[in-house]
Amino acid sequence: MNIIDIIVKKKNKEVLNEEEIKYVVEGFVNGSIKDYQMSALLMAITINGMTDEETISLTKYMLQSGSVLDLSMFNNVVDKHSTGGVGDKTTLIISPIVAVLGCKVAKMSGRGLGITGGTIDKLESIPGFNVNLTKEEFIDELGKVGMVITSQTDTIAFADKKIYALRDVTGTTESIPLIASSIMSKKIASGSKNLVLDIKVGEGALIKNIEDARHLANLMIKIGKSNNMKVICLLTNMDVPLGNNIGNSVEVLEAINILYYGIDNYLTRLCIELASYMVSLGLNIDYMMAKQKVIEVIKNKTAYNKLLEFIAYQKGEINKLPKSSKMYEIKSNEEGYLINISSLEVAKLSSLLGASRQTKEDTIDYSAGIIINKNLNDKINIGDTIMTLYTNKNTIPNIDINKLFTIGSTPNSSFTLIYEIIKD
Amino acid sequence: MNIIDIIVKKKNKEVLNEEEIKYVVEGFVNGSIKDYQMSALLMAITINGMTDEETISLTKYMLQSGSVLDLSMFNNVVDKHSTGGVGDKTTLIISPIVAVLGCKVAKMSGRGLGITGGTIDKLESIPGFNVNLTKEEFIDELGKVGMVITSQTDTIAFADKKIYALRDVTGTTESIPLIASSIMSKKIASGSKNLVLDIKVGEGALIKNIEDARHLANLMIKIGKSNNMKVICLLTNMDVPLGNNIGNSVEVLEAINILYYGIDNYLTRLCIELASYMVSLGLNIDYMMAKQKVIEVIKNKTAYNKLLEFIAYQKGEINKLPKSSKMYEIKSNEEGYLINISSLEVAKLSSLLGASRQTKEDTIDYSAGIIINKNLNDKINIGDTIMTLYTNKNTIPNIDINKLFTIGSTPNSSFTLIYEIIKD
Repeated sequence: MNIIDIIVKKKNKEVLNEEEIKYVVEGFVNGSIKDYQMSALLMAITINGMTDEETISLTKYMLQSGSVLDLSMFNNVVDKHSTGGVGDKTTLIISPIVAVLGCKVAKMSGRGLGITGGTIDKLESIPGFNVNLTKEEFIDELGKVGMVITSQTDTIAFADKKIYALRDVTGTTESIPLIASSIMSKKIASGSKNLVLDIKVGEGALIKNIEDARHLANLMIKIGKSNNMKVICLLTNMDVPLGNNIGNSVEVLEAINILYYGIDNYLTRLCIELASYMVSLGLNIDYMMAKQKVIEVIKNKTAYNKLLEFIAYQKGEINKLPKSSKMYEIKSNEEGYLINISSLEVAKLSSLLGASRQTKEDTIDYSAGIIINKNLNDKINIGDTIMTLYTNKNTIPNIDINKLFTIGSTPNSSFTLIYEIIKD
Repeated sequence: MNIIDIIVKKKNKEVLNEEEIKYVVEGFVNGSIKDYQMSALLMAITINGMTDEETISLTKYMLQSGSVLDLSMFNNVVDKHSTGGVGDKTTLIISPIVAVLGCKVAKMSGRGLGITGGTIDKLESIPGFNVNLTKEEFIDELGKVGMVITSQTDTIAFADKKIYALRDVTGTTESIPLIASSIMSKKIASGSKNLVLDIKVGEGALIKNIEDARHLANLMIKIGKSNNMKVICLLTNMDVPLGNNIGNSVEVLEAINILYYGIDNYLTRLCIELASYMVSLGLNIDYMMAKQKVIEVIKNKTAYNKLLEFIAYQKGEINKLPKSSKMYEIKSNEEGYLINISSLEVAKLSSLLGASRQTKEDTIDYSAGIIINKNLNDKINIGDTIMTLYTNKNTIPNIDINKLFTIGSTPNSSFTLIYEIIKD
């Protein structure tokens, strides 16, 4: 077997067999297949696609390239994953809800890069919070607290780590089989047998249209099935940011507020849906019953208490959450209804304020970020504060407010939060 | 500008503008664009193609990445190029013919890799032969002898050298725009204003079918035109090896024999055609008149004398041509007519005998090779020697003679040497 023949096969739109896929993953991991060869193959896959069988094989060998966590000592282990959104702090809100209802939420999360935030970065904004748990600490906390979040170790789906780094710099991120195998190899290796996937659809997301999202959902359900994992996919709107706060410490704060005050907004509604599907999988009960329970633990603040317990258990000092030294209020120069908020532009601005990395070597200003002071379809008057910027920088970037916010004469009645639910 | 955006553009089948192509070539040469990024882009180009305008831009910036030879002090400079064949020693036969007729043949040639032979390797099989001429030596010899062949320097079309090395190991060799820009950037940089291209078509060749060959021909003519270079393309058969000898010193010997004895075979006929088009371009005379002159200088042995003069001028000692220590005659086990010789299988066998490199680091056994003792459509009897192997190895590989030679009950009347001539 020879890597050039395999690349040429995929270039010619042929199907690779399991042996060839094994050869590719193992060769890339051991270094006999070079980065420049792998990137040529990844491009051929991105353009010419893969069959579901090829993708299942790819996931299998990516999974086998690293360690696999055994959580079979617990029942009811559930996991969730989002394909990446702006202002997406759902993990922080949902996990305590699901944990308090008796499921075990075992999460290995990633860091953000570029405009996408990462749960690990958000947690690290809490002084003292430990995201580097050993396997023993992970399992111990899962048993005692019912939820645990740690940084993904290098040993989980090792091939994925190497492939992902290459995709990121070679224009091969937007490939459904590569996205599916990347997510699923990590999720299967993380030990859960139940998974709720939030597939973001929209201009700011990796998946731009509903057809691709459906394809991805069905593929991941199929991969899950062949690995004894139950998967439910929600296809959700990513045209506007999720919630009002974008950054790190400001997002932690928003998560706490949602669970404390039970604020009814799009973010809360999405969290209730995701949590309900997780609980229905984890407890093996129907969705409506799960949803009732979810709403109950928000109302009675037991989920709020669970979140604080979790933060404290991982040594986070929530009362020491950092605040930025500077604050800038941005006012509206128009009157009307707030009919759109560009998630892409908001993310770029937040990044420029210091809230995320431009390159892997950058450091994050955990206190930097944005609070959007208005909600979608709110009535806006000239001079209203529409957003507040938090930063430690002495200057703020030039802001074209009309690129960030669209003000119209009538409310936008067409906004859909959840497009579809796909399950086996 | 950003390389990832450019890769994604080509992945999405969009057209790159001249600024983007300039950015790619310059960035790859200066190292800011990495190998793995370039190989992803090359794969996207191989699958999604390039417009003629994109290919002309790519050629332009590849050309500008290195030095350009100025041969404007000569009239009548002509060059030829073959897209790579098995047993192709046409350069050694044609150049003296064309030179003796008053054209200047200025050639920078390459080495072989894998199954394809290179003119430089063939010349180096002559003891003492100097393939590393300075620019001054090159121009001096062109003036005095009328022909000169040197190894392509690193400074000619520098980007091509880097891109070609990457294409070779990433399954991106079979791309018409990449082939066209690679050949033409080198040829334009080599200083000639007239070029005859021998585009090989067949299973053993880079170009498998006549439609692709036509596309390549028209594209190279167009690139030539936009660079003030006249180009004529011959689309020729590469299903069987060119001539009877395959190797290095054995091919030099065959070239000498053709010019000395004026042997009439497919190889000679192809050489006459190629030489006639070169002479018609170089002297600006019509093809029939050129052909008469070409035949004349073969007959009167002035071309033969020119070849010897050229070899001696570059310090080659032709009487010291190496001979292998071992010789194996391979006999036919069938009776009938020789209706096919697999150029691919012959090339592989010759390579195994030591005649070519498997990797760039290998050394060549210049005396190793094959002489095919029969011609296409010859009557073959059982026990006839069909080929003779020359090697210094103590064992020869297992030979499946039926994979190399096809013996049929009637001659193959369908053999076509030259498919088409394409010119502006």
